[in-house]
Formats: sequence, structure tokens, C-alpha cells
Amino acid sequence: MAILVVGSVALDSVKTPCGEKDDCLGGSATFFSLSASYFSPVKVVAVVGEDFPKEYIDFLKKRKNIDLSGLEVKPGKTFRWKASYECDINNPQTLDTQLNVFGQFNPVIPEKYKKSEFLFLANIDPDLQANILNQIKRPKVIACDSMNYWIKTKRQSLESLLKKVDIFFVNDSEARMLSGTDNILKAAKYILKLGPKITIIKKGEHGVLFSSKDSSFIAPAYLLEEVVDPTGAGDTFAGGFMGFLSSQNKLNASTLRKAVVYGTIMASFNVQSFSIDKLAYLKKSDIQKRYKDFVNLTKF
Amino acid sequence: MAILVVGSVALDSVKTPCGEKDDCLGGSATFFSLSASYFSPVKVVAVVGEDFPKEYIDFLKKRKNIDLSGLEVKPGKTFRWKASYECDINNPQTLDTQLNVFGQFNPVIPEKYKKSEFLFLANIDPDLQANILNQIKRPKVIACDSMNYWIKTKRQSLESLLKKVDIFFVNDSEARMLSGTDNILKAAKYILKLGPKITIIKKGEHGVLFSSKDSSFIAPAYLLEEVVDPTGAGDTFAGGFMGFLSSQNKLNASTLRKAVVYGTIMASFNVQSFSIDKLAYLKKSDIQKRYKDFVNLTKF
Repeated sequence: MAILVVGSVALDSVKTPCGEKDDCLGGSATFFSLSASYFSPVKVVAVVGEDFPKEYIDFLKKRKNIDLSGLEVKPGKTFRWKASYECDINNPQTLDTQLNVFGQFNPVIPEKYKKSEFLFLANIDPDLQANILNQIKRPKVIACDSMNYWIKTKRQSLESLLKKVDIFFVNDSEARMLSGTDNILKAAKYILKLGPKITIIKKGEHGVLFSSKDSSFIAPAYLLEEVVDPTGAGDTFAGGFMGFLSSQNKLNASTLRKAVVYGTIMASFNVQSFSIDKLAYLKKSDIQKRYKDFVNLTKF
Repeated sequence: MAILVVGSVALDSVKTPCGEKDDCLGGSATFFSLSASYFSPVKVVAVVGEDFPKEYIDFLKKRKNIDLSGLEVKPGKTFRWKASYECDINNPQTLDTQLNVFGQFNPVIPEKYKKSEFLFLANIDPDLQANILNQIKRPKVIACDSMNYWIKTKRQSLESLLKKVDIFFVNDSEARMLSGTDNILKAAKYILKLGPKITIIKKGEHGVLFSSKDSSFIAPAYLLEEVVDPTGAGDTFAGGFMGFLSSQNKLNASTLRKAVVYGTIMASFNVQSFSIDKLAYLKKSDIQKRYKDFVNLTKF
């Protein structure tokens, strides 16, 4: 089954204790679609400016399983994000955000994308996310992400969107902010009451809490001796999760849990390099090997 | 198989967001032995002052599987610890420490304890821990705990002790301090090189990393909607781990991993009340039920 993703394609400048890289390929739709593409076909809707390097477009276009025909190139500059993880590898300090053409992003879903069975609404204005739902046939699975900024400034729009989605990806600090409680289990219960059938709280190096009305699943992160750059880990997780789910086209408890583990594995590859330098060049056998490692690390 | 534990029996005064309790039963040997006693017989070596409530002594003496004949009552006052978890439920602010008779604790192992097959050296001066090893027949399994204070002030003694122990229990901040690295996997490798066959890094609500030369095991914590008082969680974990291990009298990978899970389960009960109010009154079926819950929470 194909997945439609709507999000950002960006140029990131990132500094971490392992080094720095300027104007490298980033953005939620980039990380998500590269990650998901190992499992399922992905259709991208995003926008870049005229300055966006042709080599990056060519690179993405050539990728097996990625349909880039929904990428608009608009007059102006590409969305740029500059951050430093030097003090805390888990929390970047944003140094500069230039929305540029992404500030006027008003996603129009191409006709041929409108019957996608899986949808991932990456982090954009919840009103735009809702507007996408109005343009398409109701997918089998609707998943979305958001961020602290929208929780603070567009809470009502976000809550209204959450009534319509099946899966909500959120990180732990955002879950605490949204629910008003420090306790992560209580936060998950609170969010489920807002509407989504499943909430997935991402805790970075401390793993993931998956919650539905029926059950909970706790998965630790895949520990690494070196984290080079955590940028995009959340979207890469979502890509692995949705990619695997759509490849199985089943939504039972066992498949959902395996999807969490594939998300975890894909995110672990992503943080081992800057940008997409590792994520883009995996073999299927690398993924299967690390999945087996994860089984061995956690079984008892 | 019986377990010998050498540690503190104390009077704790604790304030948490859930309330406060003064002069309640605490101390590493108390939490450890209550936890381990659900699985195996435990022999306690500790010291209290003449002010130590007779009801606490009677309570411990009556417990099935706890041999209290190694508890000395010395002239003077009992070790007292006062702390507040109001700002951060994971890290107490120590308000007052009165070592009292515990300050002169020089453990003498009773003759009938000297052939114990499992030994847990709770957190005391590493020179005293080493001295205990000189008094007894080499147990089948020697485990120890320590703390930041000894890492700072008696590093050489601690390193010398670690050469002789099989299992080292340490929390994440202490593991980072001891190894000089923030990365928890690297910290575990560093500690293994100091001597112990197994290192168990406790990460509080984020679970446990078990490492040996052959393999690693990551277990998440058992999540709870309310943590009443985390005091003693580490010693309760060690008690569940050592208690289960000694009840099985096997040291293979599968038993060690199950022991980590039993430690996790016992610690989760402990933090649900002040002092030993929950830990002391469990049924074996409570433990088995939560073990099954944990299996369901983590399997995929």
C-alpha cells in the first residue's frame, strides 16, 4: 500500500559534538519518506524554493519507492533550519529558522495521490493538516505529528484534528504539555481521550510508549555508542512505523508492535550520521540484522 | 540458596508530592531483604541504635525468610536520612544525614552466615565491603552497590573491590561519573573492564541496562500512573534480582534476564508507597500478575 506524506523538505545546518554540516538535506517529509521507502511506496507533497539544489531533487527522484511529483518548486528560498546540539544531544538549541516558501505552504494534493490508503501528516499548522483531509478520500490510516508551537498557539485546531486521526506521534515533552501532567502514562490516556485510536509517545534515547484503548507497549531505544546527529529521528521513526504497517496492510496488535520496533530501528540508523547520510544508504539486510539484534537485546 | 546482605537499617523522613512520612523504616538492607525474601532466604548484617523502634525489629524478625540475628543494636542513635522529592521525583534533595551508629559500622559476619552462596554488599565504604569478603568463604555470586560519594572519595578502594565482584549495581549518573562518559553503553563497557562480570545500570523510570562480556539486555521500567516515594527502589531492584537468581540457582543468560525483570517488578511495587508499606505486604500472586503484565507490555 502507498503512503502519502505531507511535510517539509528543508536545508538544515546542524552542529553537534561530532561536527557540523551546513545546508544539508533535511525536513520531515525527507526523513519520513526515505525511511518508509524501505518498506512501501511513498508519495511526497512538499515545497522548496528555487535555490534548492538540483542534486537533492535528482537524488530523491531517483529513489526507488519515492514519488516526488507532488514536490512544488516555488519562487523564493527553501525552508532553512539552523541548530546546535552541543550542550544536550537530546534537545537542539534552534539558532535560526527561515520558513521562506514553507511559510506560505498550502498543500494541494495531486489527483493521483487522492486515494492513498496510508497518510502521514508531518508537523505543519493543524489547520493545513485538516485541510488535507478535506481534499482526499478517507485513508485507511491517518497519522499525524505536531509540535509544542501548535499546542501553544493553535490548541483548538489541533484538538479538532486529533478527533479525525488514527495515530498521533508526539514526543514526551509535547505530550506533557498537551496533557498538563508529568506522568507519561497519564499523558497517554489524556491524549487518547482527545480522539486518536493510538498515541505513540517518543522519548528519544529512552524509547517509545505505544498506547491504544486496548493495550500499551513499551519499547526501549536501540542504544548506540555514538549519536552523531539526532535531527529527523522522530520523522524517521514514523517512516519506519508507517512503512512497515503499510507493507503488511494489517492493523492487529502484533503488527503494530513490530511497526514500533521497525520505527525504532530506522531512527537508530538515522542518528548515526548527519542528515540522511546513513539513512539513505541502507541495505534491507542491515535493517533485518538490527531488528534481530533488537530482539536479542530485549527478549527474556 | 540463602543470600547474605550487609547494609543499612535506617529511619527515613521523606517528603514527596504525595505527602510526607517521618522516621519510617528504611535503609538498603531493609529494602533489599524484604524484596529478596519473596524468593529466597535472606540473612541480614546491619546496625541500629538503642532508639530503633522495637516494633520494627519485631516486624522484621517475624518475616518469613528473613534472618535478623546479624542485626546489632549499639548504644547511640540509629542512622537517619531526611529528604525531599518535591522538585524532582527521580532525584531526592537530601535535607539531613545523621550517620549515628552507622558511622562506626564495622560489619562482623556471624559464623553461621559465613558460607552464604549469594552476597549483596549494599552501599557502604568500599574498604568495609572488601573487609567482608575477607571474613567469608567465597560466595558463588558476589554483588555490590556503591554511590557517588565513594566514587569521588575512595575511587581506588572501589576499583580494587570491583575486581573481586561478579555483579555491580550502579545508577546511570554514578555510571557516568565513574566512566567519565555520558554515553551509557560506553559507560557499561568501561565498568566491565574494571572487573565485574556483569554491570547493571539502573536508569530509574527509564529502565535498566544489563551488560556482560557476552551480551546486553535492555529492560524498560514498569510504568506507573503514580509514584508515591522512590526511596529504596534501587535496593528493592537488587533484592528482586538476587532473590530470583538465588531461587533458581542458575546463572545462564535467560535466568539473568528474568532476574532483571523480577527486580524491575519489585521496584515498581516499592515506589507505590512510602517506606515498605506496599513492598512488605505483597502476595506471590501480585508479583506473578505484574510479571505477566510486564511480558504483555514488552513482547512483540
